[in-house]
Amino acid sequence: MNKLLKGLAIGGIVLAVVSAGTLAVAKENASRAESSNGQSKNLIVLIGDGMGPAQVSAARYFQQHKNNINSLNLDPYYVGQATTYADRGEDGGHIVSGIVTDSASAGTAFATGNKTYNAAISVSNEDVSRPFASVLEAAELSGKSTGLVTTARITHATPAVYASHVRSRDNENAIAFQYLDSGIDVLLGGGESFFVTKEEKGKRNDKNLLPEFEAKGYKVVKTGQSLKSLSAKDAKVLGLFGGSHIAYVPDRSDETPSLAEMTSKALEILSTNENGFAIMIEGGRIDHAGHANDFPTMVQEALDFDEAFKVAIDFAKKDGNTSVVVTADHETGGLSLSRDNIYELNVDLWNKQKNSSESLVSALNEAKTIADVKKIVSDNTWITDLTNEEAQYILDGDGSSYKREGGYNAVISKRLLVGWSGHGHSAVDVGVWAYGPIADKVKGQIDNTRIATASAEVLGVDLKKATADLQSKYLYPKFKINRNKEVLFPAKPLAEALGGKYQAANGTATISGMSGTITVDLNAKKAKLSGNSSSITIDVDNDVLYLPLTAFSQITGQTLKWDALSERIMLK
Amino acid sequence: MNKLLKGLAIGGIVLAVVSAGTLAVAKENASRAESSNGQSKNLIVLIGDGMGPAQVSAARYFQQHKNNINSLNLDPYYVGQATTYADRGEDGGHIVSGIVTDSASAGTAFATGNKTYNAAISVSNEDVSRPFASVLEAAELSGKSTGLVTTARITHATPAVYASHVRSRDNENAIAFQYLDSGIDVLLGGGESFFVTKEEKGKRNDKNLLPEFEAKGYKVVKTGQSLKSLSAKDAKVLGLFGGSHIAYVPDRSDETPSLAEMTSKALEILSTNENGFAIMIEGGRIDHAGHANDFPTMVQEALDFDEAFKVAIDFAKKDGNTSVVVTADHETGGLSLSRDNIYELNVDLWNKQKNSSESLVSALNEAKTIADVKKIVSDNTWITDLTNEEAQYILDGDGSSYKREGGYNAVISKRLLVGWSGHGHSAVDVGVWAYGPIADKVKGQIDNTRIATASAEVLGVDLKKATADLQSKYLYPKFKINRNKEVLFPAKPLAEALGGKYQAANGTATISGMSGTITVDLNAKKAKLSGNSSSITIDVDNDVLYLPLTAFSQITGQTLKWDALSERIMLK
Repeated sequence: MNKLLKGLAIGGIVLAVVSAGTLAVAKENASRAESSNGQSKNLIVLIGDGMGPAQVSAARYFQQHKNNINSLNLDPYYVGQATTYADRGEDGGHIVSGIVTDSASAGTAFATGNKTYNAAISVSNEDVSRPFASVLEAAELSGKSTGLVTTARITHATPAVYASHVRSRDNENAIAFQYLDSGIDVLLGGGESFFVTKEEKGKRNDKNLLPEFEAKGYKVVKTGQSLKSLSAKDAKVLGLFGGSHIAYVPDRSDETPSLAEMTSKALEILSTNENGFAIMIEGGRIDHAGHANDFPTMVQEALDFDEAFKVAIDFAKKDGNTSVVVTADHETGGLSLSRDNIYELNVDLWNKQKNSSESLVSALNEAKTIADVKKIVSDNTWITDLTNEEAQYILDGDGSSYKREGGYNAVISKRLLVGWSGHGHSAVDVGVWAYGPIADKVKGQIDNTRIATASAEVLGVDLKKATADLQSKYLYPKFKINRNKEVLFPAKPLAEALGGKYQAANGTATISGMSGTITVDLNAKKAKLSGNSSSITIDVDNDVLYLPLTAFSQITGQTLKWDALSERIMLK
Repeated sequence: MNKLLKGLAIGGIVLAVVSAGTLAVAKENASRAESSNGQSKNLIVLIGDGMGPAQVSAARYFQQHKNNINSLNLDPYYVGQATTYADRGEDGGHIVSGIVTDSASAGTAFATGNKTYNAAISVSNEDVSRPFASVLEAAELSGKSTGLVTTARITHATPAVYASHVRSRDNENAIAFQYLDSGIDVLLGGGESFFVTKEEKGKRNDKNLLPEFEAKGYKVVKTGQSLKSLSAKDAKVLGLFGGSHIAYVPDRSDETPSLAEMTSKALEILSTNENGFAIMIEGGRIDHAGHANDFPTMVQEALDFDEAFKVAIDFAKKDGNTSVVVTADHETGGLSLSRDNIYELNVDLWNKQKNSSESLVSALNEAKTIADVKKIVSDNTWITDLTNEEAQYILDGDGSSYKREGGYNAVISKRLLVGWSGHGHSAVDVGVWAYGPIADKVKGQIDNTRIATASAEVLGVDLKKATADLQSKYLYPKFKINRNKEVLFPAKPLAEALGGKYQAANGTATISGMSGTITVDLNAKKAKLSGNSSSITIDVDNDVLYLPLTAFSQITGQTLKWDALSERIMLK
């Protein structure tokens, strides 16, 4: 919720609680059909990161065979499936992704409605990228409260696409910094290290952001207990439950909140806004366990997500004015529920690993002998008969960056009769589940961009307008920093992005079509700005001309500023 | 259509054609909602054998990147997904399958509505199995015409579950024999070898069935051309387009019909029955290419299936009184659309294999050197730079029963960036697509048995009654044949299946609870039938007592007959 509307909403809280309560009673038994003019006040998006079809089937087999529960909480709400591919940039674009998407590209699709390249956080696939507004940003503009909840770092790609814009997902410092002004009311996840400085065991060179969040009214909490003790009146919350990602389900301490607990508190807080809310809740580590090929942990993370979904759907049913949509960004690991020509799954063993493979990494790295490995494996699993060949395979590592952890998981997966095609993502379509007015909009075979446009439709918010607003403010160019710590930009794409024209011939580059011109003698490395000699830095790198931003400020007549912390050009 | 109703239907053909035509015009633009009282006169079931989620996504990527077609014909009709697991028989059953289903078990589920063990063709998971009626059998009883169409052998599991009942899918001779009396009007597929004798290069010891089919009014055709030349009045057709399965798409000759062509002719013939029809159409070799891990051929088979779907959906839309439902029995191969941590699919190469890997088997088997292998590979693919290591891997085989063909496909798949977890099936849920009144019944997350019950509901036919009818006629026991070629049955389960009681103590087994009794001295191997000495054969094998059927005939007062060709006991 942005500042302007904040006063109004705070004034309305008591009334909102009462009226929401009345509404809840009245609509408690409302069916999907009753609750619709095609819109809902609130939207809950849940993303199972890396939760492809096989991951979902695996979680259900676990419930059926280990817990005697016939179906997942998700199952009754299955409505369709979505394609996930990234924008390769084949048509003139210079940034080329593979078809197989990452979380950033897929997230940009379902958060903003636009395909982009892998690694892009809600920016376009161009040399000078432009920002795409997310459904949460558009909801902010219309006075709704907003939230992001994840078991991964809160600065990880899936939450990031909803509230920040950067060329590369790896720049999590910029993402954390952008959250400060994002207006997102509730931020719960891991990733404290991107909010604090290196001196404080974090990753930032600049400053500790936590005091700045507190200055903006955020309560900062770091344990499940302190999260629980927050009241619904604590309208702005930054919860950071780990330096990096939140611990995997099997590795959690009493201090670690579950995704369901975070979801519950977020909904309690956000639902006090009578204008409604929009929230994205991510099961972020289904993906990580998939990358590692740690099957038992992947199943537990999927079930943790399914429990969070139950909190969300129970809220929506009681509330009567909430749409819920669930999907995945992509499948992770190329998981297969069978292997080696055997028509069986060893489901009886799926709960017999104590801790995640991640928790074994130090011990595995320190192992020196086959006996060491056998002990690590028998301490953590049901396997008391690890063969020398299996132990040696673990010692050798699986040849991937997962090394011995990869070897360990390969051995475990073979015993569990599940297969993986690697440690990356795959391009299979993913499931879509939905409840409320959004259900009709996302059913059947859809592209993942439809999640975003349907989200905007049910909320009655304007993604295009929000995007136009952002694009009038920011550009995201490639850039380089020279020895003098000057930031330089590729002249051609930036000139074109600013509405100008770039021509190069006979050793001279000319930028025209704006109020002034730049002429660069590429050999002498001298520039003239609108005919006058200039001492601006000229850099030619692999035949590409780079210029500082001041050059463009002068010929456009605009005050262009480089926001180094967010890595973007501010147009006004 | 059974004999009793045949006369009526023949009399009605001309009228039916006219009225169907009028109906078609009237309903040409009918939406789903308009065409329903929850039922439809006709039902088309399409099964993509082995067509899991990744297979479908792969086919769509192929269309998008190689044919510039944005979606599959199937896509607009996606409504949900189905679980596929087999009945393990854990609760007291003696036949134990793995969870991962085969086509027989899955087929029994979606044809009859009952879970059973792997290999079972529409019989129950019991020591003495009982038959389950299929939707086509129930449709027969209600006067509808019926058809089975497949690119696999017509005696293969998926068609077999709709019109036959055997303990083991491998008994394709029995399946072919049972088709004779099944009443199925149109049978199109491969598998001629199970209809003709060994002397005629077939697999039968008993007789050539083709004259018997002709005697029952079937036209027997063996080429695409002769199929095409049939008229709608050729009400009964047996089309056999190969000794075994129909050739893969890339290996077909001009004589080979496509699945779409077979579908088109079958619908033309069946739709002349004014009482309606029910048909199952299988893309049977998506599965086979998956088993072999022949990715390019798998994609072509999936697209062949998608073309057949187009014929079916176009018919249904024009007809206005037809439900269409599509699913898969299971996924095959553990296919993954990515591998080795690379976020790309080499779609540009997916159409660069000339013939199927199956077509290379002889050549690969004859290859003696690395150079031989390189030539085979470069003759059939785009690969002119096969490494010595790749060639050697092919020569060595992949360690599975696919040997060198498996090695070849492993090399090709690695180059295409797709992965497989083995040569068997996997347990991931499969897609469901539907049109017409059945769509609402099969949407969302369903079990595959729901395909059968929904099929029966839309047709208004009674699966339970049809099953009761079959169960009053047949039992399917385990059996053994001794040196004297006597057929013997395990006494305990057969006695119990016949309503009796079996007790064994102190070297004596007693069967009681029927009109007579059997007492067997297990040591002396002598029997008394209702107190009288008897010379029936007594066989004790691994502590299990086996008896001939005559013994049971005498104590039940029923004339029990062993139908050796169908491998079942006839109760009356």
